[in-house]
Amino acid sequence: MSQQRTGPTGGPDFPDLPEATVARLPEYLRALHHLAEDGHDTVSSEGLAAAAGVNSAKLRKDLSHLGRTGTRGVGYDVTLLIDQIEQVLGLTHRRAVALVGVGNLGHALAGYAGFGTRGFRIAALFDADHGRVGEHINGLVVRHIDDLPEVVEQESISIAVIATPAHAAQHVADRLVEAGVTSVLNFAPCVLNVPDGVDVRKVDLAIELQILSFHEHRKSALTALPAAVQKPGRVGMANRLGGEAVAT
Amino acid sequence: MSQQRTGPTGGPDFPDLPEATVARLPEYLRALHHLAEDGHDTVSSEGLAAAAGVNSAKLRKDLSHLGRTGTRGVGYDVTLLIDQIEQVLGLTHRRAVALVGVGNLGHALAGYAGFGTRGFRIAALFDADHGRVGEHINGLVVRHIDDLPEVVEQESISIAVIATPAHAAQHVADRLVEAGVTSVLNFAPCVLNVPDGVDVRKVDLAIELQILSFHEHRKSALTALPAAVQKPGRVGMANRLGGEAVAT
Repeated sequence: MSQQRTGPTGGPDFPDLPEATVARLPEYLRALHHLAEDGHDTVSSEGLAAAAGVNSAKLRKDLSHLGRTGTRGVGYDVTLLIDQIEQVLGLTHRRAVALVGVGNLGHALAGYAGFGTRGFRIAALFDADHGRVGEHINGLVVRHIDDLPEVVEQESISIAVIATPAHAAQHVADRLVEAGVTSVLNFAPCVLNVPDGVDVRKVDLAIELQILSFHEHRKSALTALPAAVQKPGRVGMANRLGGEAVAT
Repeated sequence: MSQQRTGPTGGPDFPDLPEATVARLPEYLRALHHLAEDGHDTVSSEGLAAAAGVNSAKLRKDLSHLGRTGTRGVGYDVTLLIDQIEQVLGLTHRRAVALVGVGNLGHALAGYAGFGTRGFRIAALFDADHGRVGEHINGLVVRHIDDLPEVVEQESISIAVIATPAHAAQHVADRLVEAGVTSVLNFAPCVLNVPDGVDVRKVDLAIELQILSFHEHRKSALTALPAAVQKPGRVGMANRLGGEAVAT
């Protein structure tokens, strides 16, 4: 649907997408790759929705933003849809990512096999601790954070992962932005202040557990009530959706 | 606002909250703890909103669901609001959590200091690999996954974290549910099928990067266009919000 594209190029690169749709596209992409590996050439919206864990009406609406709505009775062409989503997500070349902080979590992230097959390459590791500089992790040498500007330029890095303690994260973010990084995935449990034009996504593991705690608390409280007064509320609905939703 | 509570108890334990509000409550809680540590007794909605990284209208709406809207000219009582949010989130006692899969990521999670101070206790570690069973990590001994039912009952565990490879995650989820676990935080990059009444939240690290990749792709494409045709679309707005939003 071309009216949903911004810019005059008319290509599929600039769809004006709701953030929630952007967050689901990687889920569709992963499901489509699995379908392709299993030999499927086409897939129905119901089949793709089930594989991605969303409802099919939402999937159809999401994909309509891309200007492709499938063919009635045939469904979506798996290869075409993969190409189109990868183009929209900018995954047509592997992006170089810097990782700052090589503690336990940084080690785990540096060794996360999922990145390589999903369009990313950990290109550089950094730490502020001189005792860690020079350490080899998964074929990379840990550099000192002072080397950021040089390495970011050399490796054309625009995305960085912060895996430092909370107290160090803002300072690291400032240095990343100074060095030219424009997207940050933050694992430190704190809010980062960044200039306009820099995107931050936050993964806070304790917050994820606290959200589950709410549901646990509510479930155990409902169990303690007589059945007659149990009333599925909005949260009950959200739970079921939450069980399918991607962490965004 | 009592009409937003489900159940007849009239207590603050059963507010009928939108899922997005539930996801932000832990952010407010963390900001409030910082304010309390800094000696603040009260905080304005603007001050709390800034500390939590959301806009203040959204914060006021979220907190109105709890039935507490602060006092005009005074703001929120920090201690009272902490108590109320902890009660709603079920954080008044530390919840025991099981962690399944002690590879790199599992090691990092087992050592994640943030859990202990945020209402959780990693109570048991499991792996399917007999070679890892018996290993000591942060004072805990890794148990075989066959011991799940026994340990889950002993430790009153209702929440589990899956940090296994994707191919093992569904099987692990099935065994967790069989053992009585009712909330799962899933780090494996796959959709889990669970029965009604079981909540799943997913953290997929590659998906987070792919969402950032979309924004990188869009930013570089806009830079390549003449300035006159640059049009901030919905995603532009979402970016700025995304820079503040919690990963849910």
